[in-house]
Amino acid sequence: MNSRFALALLLAPLCGSVLADEGMWTPSQLPQLAGPLRSAGLDLDAAQLSRLDAYPLGAVVSLGGCTGSFVSDAGLVVTNHHCAYGSIQYNSSADRNLLTLGFHAAGLADELPAAPGSRLFVTVATTDVTDRVVDRRTARLTGRARTLAIEDHEKQLVAECERDTGHRCNVVAFHGGLEYRLVKQLEIRDVRLVHAPPEGVGKFGGDTDNWMWPRHTGDFTFYRAYVGKDGKPADFSRDNVPYRPRMHLRLAPAGIKEGDFVMVAGYPGRTNRHRLASEVGYTFERAYPEFVGLATTQLAVIDAATKGREAAALKYASTVASLNNTLKNREGMIASYRQTDLLARKQQELRDLKAWVEADAERTRLYAGDIAAVEAVIADRQALARSEFLLGPSTPRLLGAARTLYRLANEKQKPADSARKPGFQARNWPRIRQGLEVLDRRYDEQVDQALASHFIGDYLALPAGQQNPAFLAALGLRRGMSPAEIGSRLAALYQGSRLGVAEERLAWLDRDVDAFKRSNDTFIRAAVALYADDRLREDRDDELDGKLQRAYANYMRALIAWKGSKGEAVYPDANGTLRITYGKVAGRTAGNPDGVAWTAFTSLRGIVAKHTGTGEFDAPDNQLAAIKAGVFGPYAEPQLGSVPVNFLSTLDITGGNSGSPVLNARGELVGLAFDGTLDAVLSDWDFNPATTRTIAVDLRYVLWQLQVVDKAETLLQEMGVR
Amino acid sequence: MNSRFALALLLAPLCGSVLADEGMWTPSQLPQLAGPLRSAGLDLDAAQLSRLDAYPLGAVVSLGGCTGSFVSDAGLVVTNHHCAYGSIQYNSSADRNLLTLGFHAAGLADELPAAPGSRLFVTVATTDVTDRVVDRRTARLTGRARTLAIEDHEKQLVAECERDTGHRCNVVAFHGGLEYRLVKQLEIRDVRLVHAPPEGVGKFGGDTDNWMWPRHTGDFTFYRAYVGKDGKPADFSRDNVPYRPRMHLRLAPAGIKEGDFVMVAGYPGRTNRHRLASEVGYTFERAYPEFVGLATTQLAVIDAATKGREAAALKYASTVASLNNTLKNREGMIASYRQTDLLARKQQELRDLKAWVEADAERTRLYAGDIAAVEAVIADRQALARSEFLLGPSTPRLLGAARTLYRLANEKQKPADSARKPGFQARNWPRIRQGLEVLDRRYDEQVDQALASHFIGDYLALPAGQQNPAFLAALGLRRGMSPAEIGSRLAALYQGSRLGVAEERLAWLDRDVDAFKRSNDTFIRAAVALYADDRLREDRDDELDGKLQRAYANYMRALIAWKGSKGEAVYPDANGTLRITYGKVAGRTAGNPDGVAWTAFTSLRGIVAKHTGTGEFDAPDNQLAAIKAGVFGPYAEPQLGSVPVNFLSTLDITGGNSGSPVLNARGELVGLAFDGTLDAVLSDWDFNPATTRTIAVDLRYVLWQLQVVDKAETLLQEMGVR
Repeated sequence: MNSRFALALLLAPLCGSVLADEGMWTPSQLPQLAGPLRSAGLDLDAAQLSRLDAYPLGAVVSLGGCTGSFVSDAGLVVTNHHCAYGSIQYNSSADRNLLTLGFHAAGLADELPAAPGSRLFVTVATTDVTDRVVDRRTARLTGRARTLAIEDHEKQLVAECERDTGHRCNVVAFHGGLEYRLVKQLEIRDVRLVHAPPEGVGKFGGDTDNWMWPRHTGDFTFYRAYVGKDGKPADFSRDNVPYRPRMHLRLAPAGIKEGDFVMVAGYPGRTNRHRLASEVGYTFERAYPEFVGLATTQLAVIDAATKGREAAALKYASTVASLNNTLKNREGMIASYRQTDLLARKQQELRDLKAWVEADAERTRLYAGDIAAVEAVIADRQALARSEFLLGPSTPRLLGAARTLYRLANEKQKPADSARKPGFQARNWPRIRQGLEVLDRRYDEQVDQALASHFIGDYLALPAGQQNPAFLAALGLRRGMSPAEIGSRLAALYQGSRLGVAEERLAWLDRDVDAFKRSNDTFIRAAVALYADDRLREDRDDELDGKLQRAYANYMRALIAWKGSKGEAVYPDANGTLRITYGKVAGRTAGNPDGVAWTAFTSLRGIVAKHTGTGEFDAPDNQLAAIKAGVFGPYAEPQLGSVPVNFLSTLDITGGNSGSPVLNARGELVGLAFDGTLDAVLSDWDFNPATTRTIAVDLRYVLWQLQVVDKAETLLQEMGVR
Repeated sequence: MNSRFALALLLAPLCGSVLADEGMWTPSQLPQLAGPLRSAGLDLDAAQLSRLDAYPLGAVVSLGGCTGSFVSDAGLVVTNHHCAYGSIQYNSSADRNLLTLGFHAAGLADELPAAPGSRLFVTVATTDVTDRVVDRRTARLTGRARTLAIEDHEKQLVAECERDTGHRCNVVAFHGGLEYRLVKQLEIRDVRLVHAPPEGVGKFGGDTDNWMWPRHTGDFTFYRAYVGKDGKPADFSRDNVPYRPRMHLRLAPAGIKEGDFVMVAGYPGRTNRHRLASEVGYTFERAYPEFVGLATTQLAVIDAATKGREAAALKYASTVASLNNTLKNREGMIASYRQTDLLARKQQELRDLKAWVEADAERTRLYAGDIAAVEAVIADRQALARSEFLLGPSTPRLLGAARTLYRLANEKQKPADSARKPGFQARNWPRIRQGLEVLDRRYDEQVDQALASHFIGDYLALPAGQQNPAFLAALGLRRGMSPAEIGSRLAALYQGSRLGVAEERLAWLDRDVDAFKRSNDTFIRAAVALYADDRLREDRDDELDGKLQRAYANYMRALIAWKGSKGEAVYPDANGTLRITYGKVAGRTAGNPDGVAWTAFTSLRGIVAKHTGTGEFDAPDNQLAAIKAGVFGPYAEPQLGSVPVNFLSTLDITGGNSGSPVLNARGELVGLAFDGTLDAVLSDWDFNPATTRTIAVDLRYVLWQLQVVDKAETLLQEMGVR
C-alpha cells in the first residue's frame, strides 16, 4: 500500500475552502494553514505550532482520555476536575471526602498519589510508518492473515521504539487504516494530586448542567509529574522529584473577550465525520438508542443496590458520573440527529462518490470493488454486534478478570514476547496488574451481582439462536430460568470465587495454564471453559478486521481523491493523537429558541443565582461570601462587572480534549476546555458551525478561586502569578 | 399660584444629564431635546415633533386607553389587536366568533361598528391653564372648598372649549396639580372594524407569553374613522363617510435593524416616578399584594361560574383578559420591587429634599409645611383605602348602575349644568347612557351574583368597626350571616330588580328623584338608601383632595426646584396626554439569567416552534403553510433568514401606549408598541434602562400577514404598499 497520494493531498496548501472553526488538525498540517491562521488572528508562526518540541505543543500532555498542560517548571499540570475525579475519589474516604471538601497540598510532601494507573504522556515524536505496517506483502493479504501481519509489524515498531526506556509507543491508524503513524511518548508514572476545588466549585451544576449553557463550573484541578532522581520516569516513590518539563505554558491572566482568536491543543479521542451512511444509520437508529436503554437500566440497578450503603455508593460514584455523562451525550446526539438530514446527505455522498468512481475505468478498477466490500463487511459486523449486545453487561466483572488472567497465562507460554497478542506482551503486564489492583476501588459484589442478574435475565429471554451456548454452559445458565434461579446460580458463582480478594486475584498473574485448569474457583473455571469459544470469536473478528481494513482504507483513499478533485482538503478523524483546533470566542444564536441568544461569558453572578445550598448547586460559603462582598481581585471583566466563569468558543473538540489548554493568539493560557453544548454533540458526526460551541473554564475564574477563595498563594507563585 | 418657576425649569435647555431612553416627553419639551435627539439619530427637525398639526404627531390618535395612528387618507387607523378586542368580541357570536376567525371587510360597506362607546380622539390643542384653575382666590383655600373651586374652574374651561362642537376637552393635572393644561380633542364617534387577524395571530401566545420575551404576537388591527357628510364627528350612520385626517403616517416596509433610532408617539396613561416613599411602600407592600389576591379570586369565581356556558364565558372574555393582564403586571412589579432598593432610595431622597429645604429660611417658609402636610394627608387616604378595600368587589354591578342613575337624577335637579358635579354634566350623559347600554355585553347575572356573594362573605367577616353600616343596611346584610343566607339575600335582591333588562335600566335615565324614591326595584331602593352616606363619603374625599392638591403641588415644586439646583431636568409623570419617547432597537442582557441574552428580533421560525395546535399557541394553518414554504414576500430580513415578527427597543412606554406607532429616524412607521417585558414593568415607578424594553410588532410582519397569508390586497393598496 502506498499512502503518498493521500499524504500529498494532506500537505497541499489549503485554498479558500477551509471551513472556519471546523477541523482537528494534526500538527503537521499547520504550516499549510498559515494563511487562514494569520487571518483568524494567530500571533505566532504557524510552523512553530507544528513542532512537538516547541512552544506551546511541548507543554501539552495526554492523561490517557484527557489532556493537561504544564504550567510551571516543576512539573505542575493543570487539567479538568472531572479528569482527576477518580484520583480525588481514590484519596477519599467516608470520613474525609475530598470530593466534597476539595484538597490543597500545602507543600510537596503533602501531595497525594493519583489513582493507580494514572499516567502523563508527553508526545516526543510522531512518524509515518504506513509503508512498514502495510508493506508490499501485507497489501496482498486479506482477512485474518492481513490482521495478523499488521499486528506483527505494529509490535515490531513498538518494540523498537520502546527500547528507549521510559517511553510508551503506539502505532495509530489514520483515515481508517489508510495511514499509520508511530507515536512515541514519555510515560510519567508518578502523578500526584496537588489541588482540587470542592465539588461545589469543580462540579457545580452536576449532571443537570452537564452539556448545558449557561454554565458555571470550576472544572479545574492540579496534578504534578514526578520522576526518579535521574530524571527518568519511575514508579511512585517518596524519593522521586518533580519533573522538569521542556517548557510550560505562560498564563494570560488579563483574559480574552468576545471575538478573540483562541486555539486548543489536545488529544481528541474519536470523531466519525468520514463514516459511511450505513454506519450512521446503524449508530443512530440502533446502537445509540440501545445504549440509552442499557445505561438507564444500569444506573437504576446501581442506585437501588447502593441505597443506604455510603461506601458502595462512593465506589460507584465515578461509574455513575461516567454513565450519566455518556447517557446525556447519546440522548443529545439522537435528538440532534433527528433534526438533521445527515443520513440522506451521507447516502447522497456515497451515490456521488460511486458515480465519480464509475465515470472512469481506472478509478473503477482501483476503488469499485473495495467500496462494495466495505459495505458488505460493515453489514456483517453490525449483525454480530446486534447478536452480542447483551453479552457484555451480562458478564460478572470477576469473570472478565478471570478471562484476562487466563488469556495472559496462555500468551506467556509463548517463548517470544513478539509472538504474543497485542495487549498481552510484557509491556502490557504492569498495566494489566494495575487494572486488577484498582478493581476493588470501583467494585462492590452486591452491585455487580445485581447488574449481572438483571442482564442475564434479559439475555436468557432472547431467542435461542441469538444466545451463545458456551457462555450459558460455562456459567451454568439455561433458558427459562426464573429470576430466583438466576440469583441463586449467580450467588453460587460469586461465593465460589476468591477473585474478589485482591491478593488472591493478583496471585493468578504468576500461575501457569495448568494451575488454571486444576482450579475450582468458579470464575477461573468459567474462564477456562469459555477459552476455546473466546478464541473462535477473536479469530472471526480478526477475519472481519482484515477485510475491513483493506476495504475501508481504499474507500477513504477514493473519498479523499474525490474530494481533492473538488478542491476540498480532508483532516483525519480524531484518533487520540495530538491535534490543534482554532476559532474564536463567540456566543450563539442559532439552535436557541427564536429571540434568545447565549452570551459568550458567564460570571460569578450566575453562581449566586443558581446556588440552592444542596445537591448539585451548592457553592461553598467562602466563595459566596467573596462574591457577595465583591472581592474580585484583579480578575473582573469591566464590561461584565464581575469575574468571568465559563466562556463559549467556536473550537472543534470532542471527548479526550477535556482539560485541554485554551490558548490566545500568542499561545498563552486563557482557559481549559471541558465540555460542549448538548445540541452540538452531534458534531462528532456532523459539524455544524452555527451551533457547535466549546465550553471552557476561564483562567481568570481559576486564579480568582485560588487567590480570593482558597488562598492558594504558593500555587499562584509557582505559576508566576503576581 | 404661579407656575412660571416650574415652567422655566421645564423649558430650560437640557444639559448632559439627560438619561438615555428614559423620558415620556411632552411635545412642548422636544425643542429642548434637539441636541440629544440629533445625537440619537433623529433625521427630522425636533421642533417639527413638537407641533400637534405637523407630521408625524398629527397622525397619532387616542382611543381612550390605547393609541392608534392614521395610515391612509381615508381615515384608516392601525392599533393593537388587544385594543380592539372588545370591538371584535362585540361583533362575535357563538356561531361566528370573530376572535377565532379574524375579520376582513372586503369593502367599506362590510366594515362593522366598533363596540358602543368606541372613540377616536385627535388632539388639536394643549393650553396651559394653571393660572385659571388655581387662581389667587383658590390658592388661599384648602380642603373641600379648594376642590370645589378647582372643579368649577375646570368645568368653565371645558364648557368654553367644547362650544366648538365635535370636540372633547379636558383639564389635566401635571406634576400632581402643580400645573394644569386644557387638552382639546376632536372626538370621532363612528369607529368601524376593518381588519383583525385571527386570535391565533393577534393574540398568539395568550396569557402565557403576555409580558414575555421571546414574543411572536401579531398584535395589530385596523379601524376606520367615519364622520358626517359635513366632515364633522357624528353618531354611527350608514350615511357617514370616511374621515379625511390632516395627515397619515408613511410606512417604512424596509424596516429597522438592531441599533437603529426609534421613537414612539402615544398616550401613556400613568406613571409614578415622582411618588413619595410612603406611597411606594403602601403600593408595593399593601395595595398590589391585595390586588393580586383579589384578582386571583375573581378569576377563579368567574371561571367556575361560566363553566360549560359558552355565551357567559364569551361575555367575560374581555374582563378575564384584562384581569389576567393586570395580575401579571402587578406580580411582575412586586417581584421586581423586591429586588430593588427603591423604597430606601425614595426615603433617602425625601430626607435629602428636607435637608435642602431646611438649609435655607426662605425655602423652609415656602415648602416645609406642605412637605409635612403631604405625608399626613397621604397617610389619611391610605387608612381610608384600607378600610374600604372590599366594598367595591362586594357591590353588585346593577347596584353600581342604580347609584349612577340616582346620582344623575339628583344632579339633573340643579338648574344650571355648570353647577353639576363633574361626570354628571350634560356632556357626560351620552357616555353614561352608553355605559348602561353596553353593560349587558360583559354582564351575566349568575357570574355577578357569584362574585358579590363571595366578597360579601369576606366583608361580613371583617371586624365590625371596619364595616359600613349604611352598606349593610341598604342590602339587608348583617354580620354572622352564613354563605347560604348571603346567597338567598342576594338572590332576593337580583330577583327584585329589573335593571338587568336594558330598556328598563335605560328608562331610569329620564326619571326624577321622586320616581326613584317611590320605586320598589330592590337595587334602586338600595341606591336611594345609600345616597346620604355616599355623599358624606364624597365630601370627605373632596376634603382630602383639596388638602392633598395644595400640599402635593407644593411638594412637587420643591422637588423640581431642588433637582433644578442639581442641574436635573424633570419630565412630568404620564397622565394620559400625548408624549414622545425615543431610544433604539436593542436586545437585552441585564436581568436575564447569567449567560443568556435576548436578541432584538424574533422571526417566523419561532411561531412554528411555539405552535402546539391548541389553546394559546394555535397559529392558523395558512400561516404555517406560508412559513414552511418560505414565502416571505419582500419582508424577509437577510440576517435573520426570515420575516421579523416582534422586536425590542429601549423606548419608555406604559399602559395607554398600546397601539402606538413606532417610528424610524424619518418619522416613518416601522411597528406598533404593544407590551413591555415583565421584569421591566417596575419602570412605571423606577426606570431601569438596562432591563426596560418595549415589545413591538414589526411592520414587516403586519404587511407579510396581510399580503401573503390574508391576501388583504385592498388594505395594502390603501396604505400605498406596492
